Amino acid sequence: MRAVDIIQKKRDGLALSQKEIEWLIEGYVSGSVPDYQMAAFAMAVYFKGMTTEEISHLTMKMVETGQQFDLSAIPGIKVDKHSTGGVGDKVTLVLVPLVASFGVPVAKMSGRGLGHTGGTIDKLESIKGFQIERSQEEFIQQVQEIDLSVIGQSDQLVKADKLLYALRDVTATVDTIPLIASSVMSKKIAAGADAILLDVTVGEGAFMKNIEDARRLARTMVDLGNAVGRKTVAVITDMSQPLGTSIGNRLEILEALDILKGQGREDVTSFICELAQIMLQLAHVDQSIEAIHEHLTNGLALKKFEEMVEAQGGNLEDLYRPVKVDQVLEVTADQDGVIAALPAMDFGLFAMRLGAGRAVKSDPLDYETGIVFDKKVGEPVRKGERIARIYMNEKNSQECVTDFKKNVKILDKAENVKEIIEIIS
Amino acid sequence: MRAVDIIQKKRDGLALSQKEIEWLIEGYVSGSVPDYQMAAFAMAVYFKGMTTEEISHLTMKMVETGQQFDLSAIPGIKVDKHSTGGVGDKVTLVLVPLVASFGVPVAKMSGRGLGHTGGTIDKLESIKGFQIERSQEEFIQQVQEIDLSVIGQSDQLVKADKLLYALRDVTATVDTIPLIASSVMSKKIAAGADAILLDVTVGEGAFMKNIEDARRLARTMVDLGNAVGRKTVAVITDMSQPLGTSIGNRLEILEALDILKGQGREDVTSFICELAQIMLQLAHVDQSIEAIHEHLTNGLALKKFEEMVEAQGGNLEDLYRPVKVDQVLEVTADQDGVIAALPAMDFGLFAMRLGAGRAVKSDPLDYETGIVFDKKVGEPVRKGERIARIYMNEKNSQECVTDFKKNVKILDKAENVKEIIEIIS
Repeated sequence: MRAVDIIQKKRDGLALSQKEIEWLIEGYVSGSVPDYQMAAFAMAVYFKGMTTEEISHLTMKMVETGQQFDLSAIPGIKVDKHSTGGVGDKVTLVLVPLVASFGVPVAKMSGRGLGHTGGTIDKLESIKGFQIERSQEEFIQQVQEIDLSVIGQSDQLVKADKLLYALRDVTATVDTIPLIASSVMSKKIAAGADAILLDVTVGEGAFMKNIEDARRLARTMVDLGNAVGRKTVAVITDMSQPLGTSIGNRLEILEALDILKGQGREDVTSFICELAQIMLQLAHVDQSIEAIHEHLTNGLALKKFEEMVEAQGGNLEDLYRPVKVDQVLEVTADQDGVIAALPAMDFGLFAMRLGAGRAVKSDPLDYETGIVFDKKVGEPVRKGERIARIYMNEKNSQECVTDFKKNVKILDKAENVKEIIEIIS
Repeated sequence: MRAVDIIQKKRDGLALSQKEIEWLIEGYVSGSVPDYQMAAFAMAVYFKGMTTEEISHLTMKMVETGQQFDLSAIPGIKVDKHSTGGVGDKVTLVLVPLVASFGVPVAKMSGRGLGHTGGTIDKLESIKGFQIERSQEEFIQQVQEIDLSVIGQSDQLVKADKLLYALRDVTATVDTIPLIASSVMSKKIAAGADAILLDVTVGEGAFMKNIEDARRLARTMVDLGNAVGRKTVAVITDMSQPLGTSIGNRLEILEALDILKGQGREDVTSFICELAQIMLQLAHVDQSIEAIHEHLTNGLALKKFEEMVEAQGGNLEDLYRPVKVDQVLEVTADQDGVIAALPAMDFGLFAMRLGAGRAVKSDPLDYETGIVFDKKVGEPVRKGERIARIYMNEKNSQECVTDFKKNVKILDKAENVKEIIEIIS
């Protein structure tokens, strides 16, 4: 086989055989297929796509190129959850203890934030002492004991994805559904889950800018998961505005605690309960939304979260302390009206500039800074009323408020935004 | 500027600015833009194309990356000629002395053959003593003295094309018109010609398989040449069957001598006279086809060719000796009918297997072997009549004749093939 023939076949819009895909990925990981051939291949995929069968072969071969977690020592169906990324997305922090509180084991690996998007692992690390590195044995043992662990993604997972993602990043071949799908799903499969809930975000703060693309990505990943024997469901969720009320690592931990106590915003709370119901169903546990919601109000989900924090070395006292910042700026409305837009991307980047996110992977984080919104899209506001607070450790306060306000749109009227747009299974 | 942004812009079908193109090519040649980014870029160009303006900027920047021949010391308009490659294509061998015999200077660099296509330089080297390497000064001096020199293409010409062509070859990005056009034209421009005649071959033995692609390539190169101040005319010529009667280095020299004596096949002879008329027009010399043909029958063109051979160290006695091979096989018709197809690609590869061509650049050549056709497409043939002779230095004669016959198609009737299909200026 020759890489150039495989590239040409894809360039000409033909489907590759399992053997061709396997040969290509093996060669790429071993170094016999150089980056320049893989880059041309990725661009050909960008234009010509791949069939579900091709994506399945690609994904399963990618899985083989790294460590594969074996969770079989944990009894029951292990359900994983993945989000394609968002702003203020603290869903995992609440969802996984909520599901685990029903005795369904959750052994989850999460990632770090980059650019305008946050990462669950960063948020957990804002809790003093919290350990996100665990050996496979420690990870499994904790889930056996308390049904829950969230750790950082192993560096040893899916070597092909590491190489390919870095290459795609510099060759304008990131946003192509077959390669996004295989990247996400190869890591989930290597992480050992039996079933997968995918949160495919859509909107200007997400990877997928429009509903059609989100639907295609969701459908591709669901078909792929099911084709390789991992029951998969996707929800398409709104990321036109930040999720919930806060952006920022420690601030999102505090909001998660509120939700876990049953004191969160109603919309985020019921959104998470719906996701929990799907995850439970994937583990063959049927529960009503009411029963799930009760685990928030009766403290069971919160208890599960605290158990995890303690099991992973986190300090419970630190968990509940408020944020420590130099100043909190209040942003007020300049006019009467309804909040019409809070662009997620803009506020994600705004929070990044406050130190809550990273421009590049090596940037340090300020866990304390961020934004708390009082108003969300569709809510009325009066002139002078507070829209948000900015938690910051810099001095340029007036400029900051001005910049913030540039992103807020107040009109005469605006529609409420639905969190879950569609469920694809 | 970042290469990834330029790739993405092209991927999204936008036209690049002169600055972006220049930055990219400079970076590629200096090594700061790696092969993998250039490969992704080339694939994006494959799918999205380039405007004439973009191709002009690309071409002129490529020219700058290598040696540029300055032919201004030679008085008059220097006209170059380039063929996109063919089988049995001995046109240059006759055309350039014919044009030079009118006092129009021709300073031409030619290439070697690869795969099924032959190269003028290889054919000239089959003449004992013929030197194809000349310094720029020697090259110019010879043209000043006798109006004609054909040498090998300098290794120092268009560094960007060398790099890019090698990359395209292994990334399935060879057959895209903007990159073919810039590759061809950058070398012609760097070689210093004032005007250029392009022979764009079309058919299964050529780069361009169909007339639409050939037309687009021809139009692109003509527009490009004219845009950068080099008057350019293209002829689209048939390469569905081998050109003339012979394939093979020494055999083609002998056929060229026949044509130069006015004893060649009528079709090839008038084809070359038509090309000569265009080249002369490009040099502002108007001559009738009859006047041009007279330079073949009165020996002036042949004399010019002999002058060149002598000037470049070639042995005139050796020039006229017949080929030396172990055996000459005769191929006869198995049935009455008309020759309907002599696929150029198949016979090019057949001659390559005889040693007349190279599978890879480092292969040695057997200058003596090849094929001489007695019949061409459209000509009637009787059962048992000779179609061709195979000049070979191997023993497996029966297998060879059988393989040869597989490629010959004899039917009840067939159309004659026109050499020049279209002229584009």
